Amino acid sequence: RLDGATAAEGLVYPVYPGECSASIGGNIATNAGGMRAVKYGVTRHQVLGLEAVLPTGEVIRTGGKYVKTSTGYDLTQLITGSEGTLALVTEATLRLYPRPAHTSTVVAPFRTLEAITAAVPPIVASGIEPVILEYIDRGTMRGITTAAGLDLGIPADVQADAVAYLVVVLEGAHADRVEADTETLGVMLFDLGAVDAYVLPTQVGPRLLEARERAFWGAKAAGVPDIVDIVVPRAAVPAFMAGVARLAARHGTRMGGCGHAGDGNIHLGVGLADATARKAAMLEVFRLGLDLGGTISAEHGIGTEKRPYFLELEDPVKVDLMRRIKAAFDPHGILNPGTLL
Amino acid sequence: RLDGATAAEGLVYPVYPGECSASIGGNIATNAGGMRAVKYGVTRHQVLGLEAVLPTGEVIRTGGKYVKTSTGYDLTQLITGSEGTLALVTEATLRLYPRPAHTSTVVAPFRTLEAITAAVPPIVASGIEPVILEYIDRGTMRGITTAAGLDLGIPADVQADAVAYLVVVLEGAHADRVEADTETLGVMLFDLGAVDAYVLPTQVGPRLLEARERAFWGAKAAGVPDIVDIVVPRAAVPAFMAGVARLAARHGTRMGGCGHAGDGNIHLGVGLADATARKAAMLEVFRLGLDLGGTISAEHGIGTEKRPYFLELEDPVKVDLMRRIKAAFDPHGILNPGTLL
Repeated sequence: RLDGATAAEGLVYPVYPGECSASIGGNIATNAGGMRAVKYGVTRHQVLGLEAVLPTGEVIRTGGKYVKTSTGYDLTQLITGSEGTLALVTEATLRLYPRPAHTSTVVAPFRTLEAITAAVPPIVASGIEPVILEYIDRGTMRGITTAAGLDLGIPADVQADAVAYLVVVLEGAHADRVEADTETLGVMLFDLGAVDAYVLPTQVGPRLLEARERAFWGAKAAGVPDIVDIVVPRAAVPAFMAGVARLAARHGTRMGGCGHAGDGNIHLGVGLADATARKAAMLEVFRLGLDLGGTISAEHGIGTEKRPYFLELEDPVKVDLMRRIKAAFDPHGILNPGTLL
Repeated sequence: RLDGATAAEGLVYPVYPGECSASIGGNIATNAGGMRAVKYGVTRHQVLGLEAVLPTGEVIRTGGKYVKTSTGYDLTQLITGSEGTLALVTEATLRLYPRPAHTSTVVAPFRTLEAITAAVPPIVASGIEPVILEYIDRGTMRGITTAAGLDLGIPADVQADAVAYLVVVLEGAHADRVEADTETLGVMLFDLGAVDAYVLPTQVGPRLLEARERAFWGAKAAGVPDIVDIVVPRAAVPAFMAGVARLAARHGTRMGGCGHAGDGNIHLGVGLADATARKAAMLEVFRLGLDLGGTISAEHGIGTEKRPYFLELEDPVKVDLMRRIKAAFDPHGILNPGTLL
């Protein structure tokens, strides 16, 4: 609905969390991310102001229609991502952008996961400013294109050769510039080890992204009991994925999926059915990510499910500080008890 | 120094606070802004992580080399802009961008301040993505160009006609695209009522911006006792400037200067020598900005000088909440006492 309303004004709200039932309130509560963070950042980068009800019943307004402010503590940013534990958001002022008229979607199969993740930093540094940079592993690509009845036109022998796919979307106001950047990207992809590179037809690109957005629910429906939403520095993704492969082998399971390679946010389905074994494996995945400078949730939030991991792995000094901040807002603990802290 | 180090890597840290003696620590403490906020945002949009010493002596690390995180309260953003009252920042992880190879600086004289401020929103909405959009009034332009020994090549009759100037800087990786966008901008400026539009020679553009950056100290040296650093929504700038003109006339003084028109951040020198009269006039300027949806400091911070205005004009519910947050970090009030709160 927001996208329709902004499109009518030639504008775009750039955060698509990949789930159409998501509300703006929920987006703000979890600081939702999605596929476009590599260019636009995440929800908190778009939240300029809030109206919020404090647990004490008072209503405050924070921020406003501006990006610059240096007038006291940034309550807007503190409430954003606080999972409803500090205040109840009743209105938000969001940043909008001119809506780009032209997009181009390129899919490049790669023979190794190392090559695909190593390709991402040079593409970002090149200045062509991709809006989306996703990797999708072979199994996930097969699953989502089959579920969506989607044919990308990639020959069977190339598919057989591909361990994973990089999906890159470019956008801009000028068709000729997007086209020139797409050509530059194609040359880069070959230099970076892609088997081939396919510019998808205008109608097919968005359908692939929609199919990708449903991967989470597809995995859930296929019985994958838990999904990791970790973030590591972009340059650490190859080391992280190599470590995940070692961990999966040791635990006798598969950990695969897809991820927002452009911003270091990796989603892994963890298939172990036994809850104790699964928890042990996930703790190792989280520790691996933390050792590489990452954090345990990029965009899903902590909520109740990831709370035990958060409380076990986060610096207790920071957890104590967060509890004191919580008490500063909500002395009686009435907002979302049991969530996060 | 940071600019030199990043340039060597083909990168740029985009926040230039307009004062070379400023440190990164100071930038983070005040959430410094500057001229490039219209494209890149301000300091907080670049601060991805911090190492900070809490008033209790503990050292924490927040955030990291990623833009996405949904792992508890955003301590990075809370500490940024807190003016050293919550923690002592000892290390920061900053976001860098590919350094654009080409820039273009356009100066357009206008006959009225209304026309100049009304020209800004359509330029921003056009999608040419200016990195700088400044307005400089006639007196300030004369002062800064004289002080810098700078000739912009604008004929005397055009200067006589100009009430103020709009300065627009475009940048990009491709010379031909920057040139094409500069032409598009020129046509827009005429349509928006500019007397003329001058593309400055490559060497002159940066010198004008340097001269503009010294305007604050120029005004201080000229004996202007106080400088307002207000922000209002970009679209409210014309109404704000009209209101300022009425207030100045009523108080029998001049309030002029320059401002970051692209992000609604206006700097006004307030010339009234009598402290009581000046405080009364400034309160009215602040109230005018607040009524238009603004806030009293965009980038200078509150510190000790603006503290009385902040405590008088800010919602007491929010001030109380900020005091409780302060106590959550600093129960004994040892960090920067007397600042902000």
